[in-house]
Amino acid sequence: MIQEVRVFAPASVANVAVGYDILGFAIEKPGDEIVARFSDTPGLRIVSITGDNGRLPYEVEKNTAGYAAQRLLAQWGKAELGIELEIHKKMPFGSGLGSSAASAAGAVMAIKSLLGSSATKMQCMRAAVEGEQKADGAFHADNVAPSLLGGFTLIRSNKALDIISLPVPNDLCAAVIYPKVEVLTKSARDILSPQLSLTTCIAQTGNLAAFISSLYTGDFELMARSLQDVWIEPQRASLIPYFKEVQEAAKANHALGCSISGAGPSIFALCRGISQAEKCIEPMRAIFQKAGIPHQTYVSAINQTGATLINKTN
Amino acid sequence: MIQEVRVFAPASVANVAVGYDILGFAIEKPGDEIVARFSDTPGLRIVSITGDNGRLPYEVEKNTAGYAAQRLLAQWGKAELGIELEIHKKMPFGSGLGSSAASAAGAVMAIKSLLGSSATKMQCMRAAVEGEQKADGAFHADNVAPSLLGGFTLIRSNKALDIISLPVPNDLCAAVIYPKVEVLTKSARDILSPQLSLTTCIAQTGNLAAFISSLYTGDFELMARSLQDVWIEPQRASLIPYFKEVQEAAKANHALGCSISGAGPSIFALCRGISQAEKCIEPMRAIFQKAGIPHQTYVSAINQTGATLINKTN
Repeated sequence: MIQEVRVFAPASVANVAVGYDILGFAIEKPGDEIVARFSDTPGLRIVSITGDNGRLPYEVEKNTAGYAAQRLLAQWGKAELGIELEIHKKMPFGSGLGSSAASAAGAVMAIKSLLGSSATKMQCMRAAVEGEQKADGAFHADNVAPSLLGGFTLIRSNKALDIISLPVPNDLCAAVIYPKVEVLTKSARDILSPQLSLTTCIAQTGNLAAFISSLYTGDFELMARSLQDVWIEPQRASLIPYFKEVQEAAKANHALGCSISGAGPSIFALCRGISQAEKCIEPMRAIFQKAGIPHQTYVSAINQTGATLINKTN
Repeated sequence: MIQEVRVFAPASVANVAVGYDILGFAIEKPGDEIVARFSDTPGLRIVSITGDNGRLPYEVEKNTAGYAAQRLLAQWGKAELGIELEIHKKMPFGSGLGSSAASAAGAVMAIKSLLGSSATKMQCMRAAVEGEQKADGAFHADNVAPSLLGGFTLIRSNKALDIISLPVPNDLCAAVIYPKVEVLTKSARDILSPQLSLTTCIAQTGNLAAFISSLYTGDFELMARSLQDVWIEPQRASLIPYFKEVQEAAKANHALGCSISGAGPSIFALCRGISQAEKCIEPMRAIFQKAGIPHQTYVSAINQTGATLINKTN
């Protein structure tokens, strides 16, 4: 019988230029690690949190990973099981890369793995989204779904958690840069106009539908024409220093498209092939370097595995 | 050498619930027929128009089909060729089924066929859209594209005429009813709010993206969940008498979804299989019958051919 598991859950890029609140994809790194093990003491406890500089609460109900695990155990009628959780944050907070979502996705995957459950990841989704809600305030799956399932995910309805896995064209890679400046999710939301124009919506929906098509057909030229956010990005670009310069540098250097990751400040580019992504990230990095803004870069294929068991102890 | 051609161009359903101004599909019937033949008199002339009750102009520049043909000939440097056009309207005006678009699509297909051109239909698109603009006022391809190309079409950008043919799942059929009440396209546009809310846009884009996915995967259950217009239909439904009743009847009787065709007043339902579509249309028809509103019904598979040569004379 399994006694302990270690799970990795990847960072994710939400919105993806054309799918505000509905699209996301996972990247290979960074990501969080969650350890779960059986304990003789009944109930769920968080026994260790690392990499958070003391920012995360140990109270299960207040902690994204803890609450996600608790909700899943409650859903399965196993709330009384003695389980210890360790949370190892290996990715930055407030980066726009779905840090809290990764912890929530990792937690449900850890519980599922520890219990040897045959439940699908989709059946663990609601608990993970409820966990992430503890950090985010809103019930939405646009980071949790890609972190848990991997690949590109579409949220048809957050309320119904109607989530569709979309295909990932061969060779599709991401170049991501996280400039270490603070963009509060709340500010990024408050800056958005509550209304948009009919013409903006038509342009955005044309791009969205074409982008979905390009995922199915692998038509990279269409993808490049489609990856244009005419709605959210123009409203949020000013929150991220040098955004326009970085975007232009990416587009001039092999990017199929480049936009804000989630609520920012991270910026992602999609590229065809890992070497293109590596070429693409350099001029993006150079801009923040020159400006003296600390930053971190991540280049990888699209993560198609999602949250995954990396170690178990019997 | 070909001396005369006869072309059929099908009716089409634009918007398709979730793709205002960007989506459309063609149906097998009704449709217009356009005849083109060489003449010894230089220049393009319209020599016969039937089925229009005298409503359409014979002046080439004012006529949708005439102008589309003229634009294509000009594009090919063949403006001086002696060509006669006949326009046989075999579908209702103002029905929301793309009547003028069918004439324009038929005209360019007739010219292409008469001249034996190897140009693709896509290369004839701009001329057809310019022709349809004569009737509609706006430059948009949401009816012209499906009528010319067949199947489901997506307009990523009207301005750039970036048009994508989407796959049609096996067995997908349409039940269409045209109640003979007048809905002016202008009224249908004027009734629309120039703005929409962020939450409406998120819900609509979720449905749109999921619908596109369902066309690629043939997931009819997803299609049924997706075919919900939360944006345009609520604003326009009141323009069509008994719309809600007809929609409910369709959904209660095998429809995957049911909404307004184009600017109305026609109402379409998508169904799985022709027999389901035939069962679906009956209760829809019964509502208009009971209300004493004259109507016409059309049940067919999705037309995957688009404008097509049906006869030629050497």
